Amino acid sequence: MPEQPLRITFQGARYAFSEMASRKFFGDDIETVPCRTFDDVFETVIAGNADYGVIPIENSLTGSIHRVYDLLLAHDLKLVGEVSLRVEQHLIAHPGVALEDIRVVYSHPQALEQCRKFLSSLENVESVASYDTAGSVKMIRDKNMRHAAAIGSRWAADDYGMQILKAEIEDIPENFTRFYVLSREQRTFGQADKTSIVFSMKSIPGALFKSLSVFALRDIDLLKIESRPLRGRPWDYIFYLDFAGDMNEERCQNAIRHLEEITTQLKVLGSYPAATPKNSNDV
Amino acid sequence: MPEQPLRITFQGARYAFSEMASRKFFGDDIETVPCRTFDDVFETVIAGNADYGVIPIENSLTGSIHRVYDLLLAHDLKLVGEVSLRVEQHLIAHPGVALEDIRVVYSHPQALEQCRKFLSSLENVESVASYDTAGSVKMIRDKNMRHAAAIGSRWAADDYGMQILKAEIEDIPENFTRFYVLSREQRTFGQADKTSIVFSMKSIPGALFKSLSVFALRDIDLLKIESRPLRGRPWDYIFYLDFAGDMNEERCQNAIRHLEEITTQLKVLGSYPAATPKNSNDV
Repeated sequence: MPEQPLRITFQGARYAFSEMASRKFFGDDIETVPCRTFDDVFETVIAGNADYGVIPIENSLTGSIHRVYDLLLAHDLKLVGEVSLRVEQHLIAHPGVALEDIRVVYSHPQALEQCRKFLSSLENVESVASYDTAGSVKMIRDKNMRHAAAIGSRWAADDYGMQILKAEIEDIPENFTRFYVLSREQRTFGQADKTSIVFSMKSIPGALFKSLSVFALRDIDLLKIESRPLRGRPWDYIFYLDFAGDMNEERCQNAIRHLEEITTQLKVLGSYPAATPKNSNDV
Repeated sequence: MPEQPLRITFQGARYAFSEMASRKFFGDDIETVPCRTFDDVFETVIAGNADYGVIPIENSLTGSIHRVYDLLLAHDLKLVGEVSLRVEQHLIAHPGVALEDIRVVYSHPQALEQCRKFLSSLENVESVASYDTAGSVKMIRDKNMRHAAAIGSRWAADDYGMQILKAEIEDIPENFTRFYVLSREQRTFGQADKTSIVFSMKSIPGALFKSLSVFALRDIDLLKIESRPLRGRPWDYIFYLDFAGDMNEERCQNAIRHLEEITTQLKVLGSYPAATPKNSNDV
């Protein structure tokens, strides 16, 4: 009897970037459980309705997604992996249709914005907002619209039997999103070499300096540090910190024990293999 | 002869949150110069086609906008002020229309998403994506659509003579955006008590620790710190840092001179009065 495929949950419609990140990490032999919101992704994993959740944490142009950090703090899921994915946009139409035939381009407003330079280079072409990118591809296929194109992913084009009329039309190609893989239990997918923690402290002068000393004293490299003011508690901050190391190492356990002496709250999200050895934002 | 009103440029359509931030900072006696992109805002100020630019830098749910930091590094504009604004969404319809009459709600997909819980509480109501929020308000007014509503700002409702059917329908009320005010020349709008800098350094162990020591040694409080890996240069990082102080103070000048000894690149964006004395993210 064949093994049951893993059930992976993520936020977004079919062909969302989160689904592509899921397939990049787990391969194509998965069962997908799409959710409407980030909250639903957490609930789905906690309830056991999926084996893993895949959730975006940071984009190279738009920054960290604080809402996801809030959910990581509120729930007790383990962070067991990360994936980095380049955000690419393609102009998709029926096979045989030429660029000159196109009079209207459909997509999510964010995708239209990301391709503004390309779109304004086309003459007599109207941009029309739609609810999701893959839905636009499906619509122009189903309605046999031969003077229309959609902006979406290569994968949506392939699966709907449509043609990429022009590839990589986004204005800024250096656009990457980093995703976290979440699980109810600690799992390992290879050798963990990166750990993510969240902590808060009173903003007494030099507090952050002291907290970083626990890593500097043990020659532990920092891969990310980000502060965020706690609303309603002026001068109190929460910090996101990634460091190079595995919580199975004694020096990492010592650093965290030392850090606990000076923080008001501390949570180790998990240790996992970095998406690439040296730079978490690379693919 | 009356004084010429200030010309303020920002990204977005009429009634964009950036226009509201502009009015919060400069008052209503301004001439607005809307732009399509963040790049255009910078170009407009540099070319002298506006006196000031107002640009979002950070959102409390979605994080720092790296693209704007990139533009601040690439161009030589001065950061002369900051504004914090709460992101509110309202359900807007014709006066006299009741909630039970509504069959379709138009707005930008991001606004629709932000109000998902409220929208799913309505029965037999369809959500339809549009290009911008204020445009949806204008459309249902112009076409006299009495079974439709739009999601948008109080200000758009007022100016188009429409009614707020239900106020503050966003799922997460704790949603604030912080904006920067940019100028060709250094200006002061009150006593500066906050300074923003950007710097980069080789990620040798303890480098960040050393760089923060220049502030800790002088009892200068940090208000924000954020790291970002430099793409294509693994282990090289860029840091965004805000501290409490004015570059006119000697201790701040000393700290920056000290920091220059250990950074590979350093840019002081500007000193300005914090949006509120204690917490830049408050309104």
